[in-house]
Amino acid sequence: MSESVAPAVVDLLGVLAYAELLAFDRMAADARLAPDLRRRAMLSEMAAREIDNYCRLAERLRQLGVDPEAAMQPFVPALHEYHEQTDPKDWLEALTKAYVGDGLADDFYREIAAFLRSPDRELVLDVLHESRFSEFAAEEIRSAIAADPRVANRLSMWARRLTGEALSQAQRVAADRAELIGLIAAEVGDQAGLMALFKRLTTDHTARMTAVGLNN
Amino acid sequence: MSESVAPAVVDLLGVLAYAELLAFDRMAADARLAPDLRRRAMLSEMAAREIDNYCRLAERLRQLGVDPEAAMQPFVPALHEYHEQTDPKDWLEALTKAYVGDGLADDFYREIAAFLRSPDRELVLDVLHESRFSEFAAEEIRSAIAADPRVANRLSMWARRLTGEALSQAQRVAADRAELIGLIAAEVGDQAGLMALFKRLTTDHTARMTAVGLNN
Repeated sequence: MSESVAPAVVDLLGVLAYAELLAFDRMAADARLAPDLRRRAMLSEMAAREIDNYCRLAERLRQLGVDPEAAMQPFVPALHEYHEQTDPKDWLEALTKAYVGDGLADDFYREIAAFLRSPDRELVLDVLHESRFSEFAAEEIRSAIAADPRVANRLSMWARRLTGEALSQAQRVAADRAELIGLIAAEVGDQAGLMALFKRLTTDHTARMTAVGLNN
Repeated sequence: MSESVAPAVVDLLGVLAYAELLAFDRMAADARLAPDLRRRAMLSEMAAREIDNYCRLAERLRQLGVDPEAAMQPFVPALHEYHEQTDPKDWLEALTKAYVGDGLADDFYREIAAFLRSPDRELVLDVLHESRFSEFAAEEIRSAIAADPRVANRLSMWARRLTGEALSQAQRVAADRAELIGLIAAEVGDQAGLMALFKRLTTDHTARMTAVGLNN
């Protein structure tokens, strides 16, 4: 490796890179669920940003002397399974998935970025999702609920399935990647620190849900 | 409309925009055929550039006071049908489709750009495909033929199907969009000019095929 690099950092860049690659693939497919070409283009554009971020992460891994494919490989089963289990069956499910999933992911990345040194810290902060995309998704969800209040219940249930599946796959990764978990544990300090991190993530998630009229 | 704009120009930007939107969708799906994550990322990145180009074309249409969706609508059936009829069944078919289709499309855009005024001329020239993508596709096709010469025959047949289907759908559009064809006819001058344009396109296509070991 051309720079000395902790295995946990390689793991982190690897899981982010594969998450982006797969998010691209799934969002591109979900765009077909859009009711018109304008909305389809919007989700397609969100997907395109994911692949741009993938390219930056893969480039950083190469710079560190790490083959991006090797770095991503350990995370293929968990991320693949998450998406298999949460395949949206209509446009609103697709948007809710993007809104909830990207929001949670961004919060998590922000927490993790604080543990990293330059330039990885800036890179991870840079691959956060653009707020105009979550605003678009939020607006679509709000209008759908305004038009038919029963939608709120259906999408709330769907959001719970998304977070449940995400948590389950995160546990799977945690059980498998001791170094990555070691990095997080070392940084948050202790059990209380970990609980505090978890609480921040769930508080923000709940706020996001409430903001569009969904309940946790 | 905020600028005076010929219907043929709206047609042209509309067909390009929808071609990009659909190319994104199809390439993103085709990326799943890739044998490894590196190759998959490369085709995904090609797809992402298509959606970026879509955004620029849609933005220009809006600037001209035209709803992008309305401008694209007339071309939905022909472009959809082209892709339905040429759905690649493996990685090499997907790459050949990108290589042959993008090459032909770029040649055609370059010809058309010459007929346009600024800023549409520069915009159309700007949405041409990056050469690194066609080089990547060409290299993949060449290596596959080197590894198994029978591949050349299969992909040559596939390329003929692609061009045949493209021509058939182009004729469908031509029959339907008098103004677009009027623009091209007025610019090339006469029947001889049209034949010369067609000859340039086929000559370049043949050269591209030969360059990767395929025959026309």
